[in-house]
Amino acid sequence: MNIIDIITKKKNKQVLNYEELKYAFNGYLNKEVKDYQMSALLMAITINGMTYEETLDLTDIFIKSGDVYKFDKPVCDKHSTGGIGDTVTLIIAPIVAALNVPMAKMSGKGLGITGGTIDKLESIPGFNVNLTKEDYHKGIKDIGLAVGAQTEDLVPLDKVIYALRDVTGTTESIPLIASSIMSKKIACGATYIVIDIKCGEGALIKTEEDAKELSEYLIKIGTHFNRKVKTLITSMDEPLSNAVGNALEVLEAKEILETNKQTKLRDVSLEVAANIVSMAKNIKVNEAKILCAKVLENQTAYKMFEKWISYQHGDLSKVKASDKIIKLKSNRNGTITKISALKVGKLAGLLGAGRKTKEDKIDYSVGIKLLCSENETVTKGQVLALLYVNDLNIKIPEEDLKIFEIK
Amino acid sequence: MNIIDIITKKKNKQVLNYEELKYAFNGYLNKEVKDYQMSALLMAITINGMTYEETLDLTDIFIKSGDVYKFDKPVCDKHSTGGIGDTVTLIIAPIVAALNVPMAKMSGKGLGITGGTIDKLESIPGFNVNLTKEDYHKGIKDIGLAVGAQTEDLVPLDKVIYALRDVTGTTESIPLIASSIMSKKIACGATYIVIDIKCGEGALIKTEEDAKELSEYLIKIGTHFNRKVKTLITSMDEPLSNAVGNALEVLEAKEILETNKQTKLRDVSLEVAANIVSMAKNIKVNEAKILCAKVLENQTAYKMFEKWISYQHGDLSKVKASDKIIKLKSNRNGTITKISALKVGKLAGLLGAGRKTKEDKIDYSVGIKLLCSENETVTKGQVLALLYVNDLNIKIPEEDLKIFEIK
Repeated sequence: MNIIDIITKKKNKQVLNYEELKYAFNGYLNKEVKDYQMSALLMAITINGMTYEETLDLTDIFIKSGDVYKFDKPVCDKHSTGGIGDTVTLIIAPIVAALNVPMAKMSGKGLGITGGTIDKLESIPGFNVNLTKEDYHKGIKDIGLAVGAQTEDLVPLDKVIYALRDVTGTTESIPLIASSIMSKKIACGATYIVIDIKCGEGALIKTEEDAKELSEYLIKIGTHFNRKVKTLITSMDEPLSNAVGNALEVLEAKEILETNKQTKLRDVSLEVAANIVSMAKNIKVNEAKILCAKVLENQTAYKMFEKWISYQHGDLSKVKASDKIIKLKSNRNGTITKISALKVGKLAGLLGAGRKTKEDKIDYSVGIKLLCSENETVTKGQVLALLYVNDLNIKIPEEDLKIFEIK
Repeated sequence: MNIIDIITKKKNKQVLNYEELKYAFNGYLNKEVKDYQMSALLMAITINGMTYEETLDLTDIFIKSGDVYKFDKPVCDKHSTGGIGDTVTLIIAPIVAALNVPMAKMSGKGLGITGGTIDKLESIPGFNVNLTKEDYHKGIKDIGLAVGAQTEDLVPLDKVIYALRDVTGTTESIPLIASSIMSKKIACGATYIVIDIKCGEGALIKTEEDAKELSEYLIKIGTHFNRKVKTLITSMDEPLSNAVGNALEVLEAKEILETNKQTKLRDVSLEVAANIVSMAKNIKVNEAKILCAKVLENQTAYKMFEKWISYQHGDLSKVKASDKIIKLKSNRNGTITKISALKVGKLAGLLGAGRKTKEDKIDYSVGIKLLCSENETVTKGQVLALLYVNDLNIKIPEEDLKIFEIK
């Protein structure tokens, strides 16, 4: 077998078998296949696609590249393909744990305009995201909940392939996205998995059609590996939450859990949590939603939230957004026709809340708080958003401040 | 400008402009663009193609990456896309020079199953293929002929891109082949260019359709850069010559020039030479062919051949094929229905006449002499080919000896 023949086959739209995929991908992990050869193969896959069979094979190869966790009891997991103000994990983890559905979840850091759960958790002073395999087992046993960063021993192949895709224009491949997500969920030991496919201009997946295709791949992989998978397709044209930025999002999640504040973020979180609980308890989604709403209302979920954060050594009382605030005002009377998730994400990045490259440091205290919503009538001079900055003299290009469309 | 955006554009079948191509390709030469990024772009180009406009732009960028030669008088050049037993250059160079059409030609080494003119010339003891810019000028001035290896100063970009394509499954891209060929011909100062597009199982170009497409690209590029270009599409299903292997091919070329032996190789060479002379002298191809046949018949071309070889310090009398010969016999009575160029090329490679990687050493003395031709009736035990080997005990897999189909 020879890597050039394998690349050429995929270039010519032929199907690769298990042995060929294994030769190429494991060869890359072992440094026998060069990065310039793998990137050519990834581009051929991105353009010419992969069949379900190939995607199942690749997922299997990914999983077997590292350790596979097994817990004493069935655990659940949740994944979002990434968005702006997407603080769902912080809210649903305590909800499902409060209903005795254990969750073991590895999360990622934010990259580009989308945030990452790990950054949000790290904005809580003291919070330990670097869990070992033993920490996961202990967390599940002690409180039924453990959320941390990706460990080195799980799916090492995904780590190197993801890094290469990121710098070679090959991120937008549905089979590659599907095998990347599912290999990590399966290796991390999840029995019940809900994937929240974010769709819209602020997301990796731009169209409903692509979201549906990804959903099919995810479910097929789940079935093949004996996992229960549900997918939700939710909009990411406008930010999911009014708070965008790490500490701001933690505070927003805390407020929703503590006060049951009615927001879009709460509604989406409830939907995701209900789907997990429905699978784990084998009950209807509507019944599960009632249970979830109840633990939110009676603060059981909030107590679990506090327990979890302190179990992982975080101090919620010390989460602080910046006290340097710039008010973003409306320059006219009118109606807000659009709040662009893409632009809000970019602006938050400019303020220091996001990374352009993996090496960038981020400022947990900065971000944006939206004070209005779509279809709202506003008047000239009305404050539409608060920008939490680390320097009041920050220069932001005029164009980047246009996060609202007003007509 | 950013390389990932450029790769993504081509991945999405969009057209790249001059600045984008320059940023990517010159960036690669300057090591600002990484090899894994260039290979992803090359794969996207190989699958999604390039427009004529893009191909002209890329050719221009290639040419400008190095020196451009200018001779005092118009010179011609010839290129073959590569085949088995393709010894045309050795025959036409002295023919056209004998007709006062100067030829300055840079040739390549063989790679894979196809041979290269440089290897053939190096099988002549003493022959100097490492010509400098000054050597080319002097050769043209003194004898009207100079053939050598690619110099470092001409089209350095092609050198690095060609090497990367070779190991990433991106060799079979018509626009990339066209800009690679034409940039070298133009930078080397040719006014009249004949490209012999080899088509068939033993060639890079497998189908008539691809050959025609390549021809169109080559002619469009030539016209754009004010060069006269003619293309020929010739078959490479069976070997062009009965002699395959470096010294054997030099001896075959010498025999054709010395004795005007009537062979297929002679006919194709005469066709190529006539097309060059026709352009250079602005006469019809048929008239040019009469002139070419004449210098072949009256040995003027042969004298030019001797003059050229000794001018570049080669000693024709010392060219030797191996004296260790294995006879390949027919195992049945029947008719030869096919002599596979691909298999002959592979077998010659196994004997040591070719390279698998650029670092391989080759043995100039080994090769194959075919003693029969297609449609010939043969009897059991008849010697069909002679294998010139460097070790009579060489083990050749049975399968690789099946170069003939007999029915």
